[in-house]
Amino acid sequence: MGSLECDCEHPLKNVVGDEIVMNPLDLGEFRRQEQMVVDFLVNYYKNVEKYPVLSQVEPGYLSKCLPSSAPQDKEPLEAILDDVHRYIVPGLTHWQSPNFFAYFQTNTSTAAILAEMLCAGFSVVGFNWVSSPAATELENLVMDWLGKMLELPRPFLFSGNGGGVIEGNTTEAIICTLMAARDRVLRRSGHDSITKLVVYGSDQTHCSFQKAARVVGIDPRNIRALKTTKSTLFSLSPDLLGKAIRSDIDAGLIPLYLCATVGTTSVTAVDPLSPLCEVASEFGMWVHVDAAYAGASCICPEYRKFLNGVEFADSFSFNAHKWLLTSLDCCCLWVKDPNALVKSLSTDPEYLKNDATESNQVVDYKDWQLSLSRRFRSLKLWLVLRMYGVRNLRSHIRNDCRLAKLFEELVAKDCRFEVVFPRNFALVCFRIHPSAIASMVNGHAVGNEDGEAWELNEANKLNAQLLHAINASGQVFMTHTVVGGVYVLRFAVGAVLVRERHVIMAWKVVQEHANSLLSMSGSNAPHA
Amino acid sequence: MGSLECDCEHPLKNVVGDEIVMNPLDLGEFRRQEQMVVDFLVNYYKNVEKYPVLSQVEPGYLSKCLPSSAPQDKEPLEAILDDVHRYIVPGLTHWQSPNFFAYFQTNTSTAAILAEMLCAGFSVVGFNWVSSPAATELENLVMDWLGKMLELPRPFLFSGNGGGVIEGNTTEAIICTLMAARDRVLRRSGHDSITKLVVYGSDQTHCSFQKAARVVGIDPRNIRALKTTKSTLFSLSPDLLGKAIRSDIDAGLIPLYLCATVGTTSVTAVDPLSPLCEVASEFGMWVHVDAAYAGASCICPEYRKFLNGVEFADSFSFNAHKWLLTSLDCCCLWVKDPNALVKSLSTDPEYLKNDATESNQVVDYKDWQLSLSRRFRSLKLWLVLRMYGVRNLRSHIRNDCRLAKLFEELVAKDCRFEVVFPRNFALVCFRIHPSAIASMVNGHAVGNEDGEAWELNEANKLNAQLLHAINASGQVFMTHTVVGGVYVLRFAVGAVLVRERHVIMAWKVVQEHANSLLSMSGSNAPHA
Repeated sequence: MGSLECDCEHPLKNVVGDEIVMNPLDLGEFRRQEQMVVDFLVNYYKNVEKYPVLSQVEPGYLSKCLPSSAPQDKEPLEAILDDVHRYIVPGLTHWQSPNFFAYFQTNTSTAAILAEMLCAGFSVVGFNWVSSPAATELENLVMDWLGKMLELPRPFLFSGNGGGVIEGNTTEAIICTLMAARDRVLRRSGHDSITKLVVYGSDQTHCSFQKAARVVGIDPRNIRALKTTKSTLFSLSPDLLGKAIRSDIDAGLIPLYLCATVGTTSVTAVDPLSPLCEVASEFGMWVHVDAAYAGASCICPEYRKFLNGVEFADSFSFNAHKWLLTSLDCCCLWVKDPNALVKSLSTDPEYLKNDATESNQVVDYKDWQLSLSRRFRSLKLWLVLRMYGVRNLRSHIRNDCRLAKLFEELVAKDCRFEVVFPRNFALVCFRIHPSAIASMVNGHAVGNEDGEAWELNEANKLNAQLLHAINASGQVFMTHTVVGGVYVLRFAVGAVLVRERHVIMAWKVVQEHANSLLSMSGSNAPHA
Repeated sequence: MGSLECDCEHPLKNVVGDEIVMNPLDLGEFRRQEQMVVDFLVNYYKNVEKYPVLSQVEPGYLSKCLPSSAPQDKEPLEAILDDVHRYIVPGLTHWQSPNFFAYFQTNTSTAAILAEMLCAGFSVVGFNWVSSPAATELENLVMDWLGKMLELPRPFLFSGNGGGVIEGNTTEAIICTLMAARDRVLRRSGHDSITKLVVYGSDQTHCSFQKAARVVGIDPRNIRALKTTKSTLFSLSPDLLGKAIRSDIDAGLIPLYLCATVGTTSVTAVDPLSPLCEVASEFGMWVHVDAAYAGASCICPEYRKFLNGVEFADSFSFNAHKWLLTSLDCCCLWVKDPNALVKSLSTDPEYLKNDATESNQVVDYKDWQLSLSRRFRSLKLWLVLRMYGVRNLRSHIRNDCRLAKLFEELVAKDCRFEVVFPRNFALVCFRIHPSAIASMVNGHAVGNEDGEAWELNEANKLNAQLLHAINASGQVFMTHTVVGGVYVLRFAVGAVLVRERHVIMAWKVVQEHANSLLSMSGSNAPHA
């Protein structure tokens, strides 16, 4: 069949009538242009910490910089990269900046970028086994690798008759497992029961859960966000869950699904898996464990305890794209009963029928996810696991936790501040303590109930101002949350380029802005 | 804030206690390793047409080649790429091979690979505007660019108060619009009405539609797949739709949503949009137009006619990742009423609250899609549109259609074969004609009803054997469908590396296998 070399290296050979047809895979150009993009990215990483972390552009800025229609003729990559530098980079909030401490990180790495190149290069669509066996089988393999790294119980692994799949994101993982749970009940009780199904999470469960429940048709009135309190560090109470379920059953409803969280988004709270699963199992409910952020840490033996009880759950997911260097998108989902997914998600149109599927010897991942098409994402996970190895990945996690601990210590040393919750992973939740504010206003009654409410309100306002000032400086970027009525600054460590000096600098930025805010407000409180 | 250069170029400087922490963005290594991957891909493309197009591996092959656990220590990229070459490549079905004529293509291009590098390199997560304004605004911009290229009516563009969003895939596009439609009705009639909602497509509508309807909680009994026939070239009949709707209303059901298709997967049938929309509008239904494959062709004025009537629809989607060179994933969805999406899909947790969102001046794309996180996919579309330009993209589409026409002519010249449907785009549907088989068996009654059924059955069997033999050869890969009871071979042209010689060779492969099958069956029918 010969080689393509001639065609590819000489794109002008592809002539249609009088028209020369471009070659979108011109290999000579490919080499030259890849080099340009690598240079661009190297330069970007070298400079990224100089950029304002939170983009400072105004809404609508880009439409003033770029034309309103696509060009008729091709443009050189040089011009495009120049526009990226001039117009796109200033409009980025720099997630890879070492001064990015917001949300949770979404890490990239050399391995991830290389794998994305291979993925786009092969551009295979492994919706079923036959459409690219390697895409399916590599995913089977690495999901077992990763499952073993997390010490997941064998029933979650392919080698234990469960199995793992890479979904795009947590919402998709929850939708798929919710559908499996929903349809299991509806097959028994009839489709009209859909209006009676109830799902449970806490008021700290990620918003994806509520959204996923709405997607699959759960009545919004039947989505429970059970209240958590500071007394249990904002984890879901099994007692409360039991009571809610019984009350729903009394009302003629059907308990369906519990989403428990290991490492909530606001404050990395950890729901007690074992007792929650015990309650849920009494009612035949599906339990999903969402460890989107914190799951990655559980490859370290010292963090694995947070997953204790997962053996009683039906499904478990975490995002390797957060803390495990794969870049978006790589949400890893394991289920004990893949067949439950397949029953809800399978399609079998004539144009996809094939012998391998009919042999029942293969996994067709289209039946484990929402969409038909799927990217070859297992390449990313495979490259990350091999290029870094378990040992390095653990030290990567530990280093971030160590830096978070350092920050926590710095906060604790300054008596104007408090660490609001004990740190579980690499997120520090802190704020200016109300006492630092109370002390600055003479004459206000402190100690009675009104005083407490006033203090809380003032503290919340001041901490919001502090965050706003910090982020407006462009020097660092953090985000916030409100739990139990308390406004809290979130300092998440995890950028791959972060070093000790960035954490120390970030703390200085916090202190400087606090100094100026507190002094404007008339405080003379000393600090360490 | 200084430069990262020292750190990045000297990874060993990051020391924690006695432990050296790896640097997953070591820029020196990055340059070297990118070069290796580029060399690997160039080599892959040079050789791809020599590989069996359909992978010839057996189920379970990969677990015999690779270890069952992740490595403790890092491994060199050299070893990994060696494994890719030895174990992954043989397990790929080569979607980028010029001999791949299966399904519909999923094209990659230099622009797509470069953009994926940038996307993974920046690794920003533009779930809302503030988390990376450029990611949102570039998407706004390019979706308007592409909308104009397709001559979409202004109400679909941001500049006309509609707007576009890049979803991962068609299923997601349909789920999101179905939810918008569903919730619009449920807000009016109460959530319990979910059991009465009915959705409509034809028996040719893509399986994603049925799946999406199941996802959002439509009763499977209320998903209509209206029958199509050869007399209307397998397009959906507006009369039939009207009758089905009226019958459902009479039964106390609520018509909700119509999914019309431009270019069905089986045979690229085109549903008549204007009359279908007229029927649907009478009942206040949402109409979505799915042009997953064929949409790309409509950037050429001569194909734009297939979208006539889209001005009466509520939403429109097509996959740039199929025929428009962006590689997976890039499903472009436009809606006239973005607010309908936002009402169903928005989330507003405290940890994402920000001034820009509250100003109502910005788009937060998390509220236009299922997941929170999202990749910076607009980079792909932007690079493709700029690096190739409208003119080249049109000639890319036209060239594939020209090659498909060539194949169609070759089929037509051989009297043993028939082109089963007139070609609309770059898909040719063909088969060995029953007469070629009938003529080879002496004494069987031909012409009466039994004879016709026998003929059809024999023809279907033989054509299935033909496809099996062709694909087993590894020389080319095609797929099949069955419409109106007829087994049809699908020859889809669109690989970026395909040239005239590949199409001619593919036809020779078809003929050779047909010769041998027909002669084994005792036929002596001549062919041109």
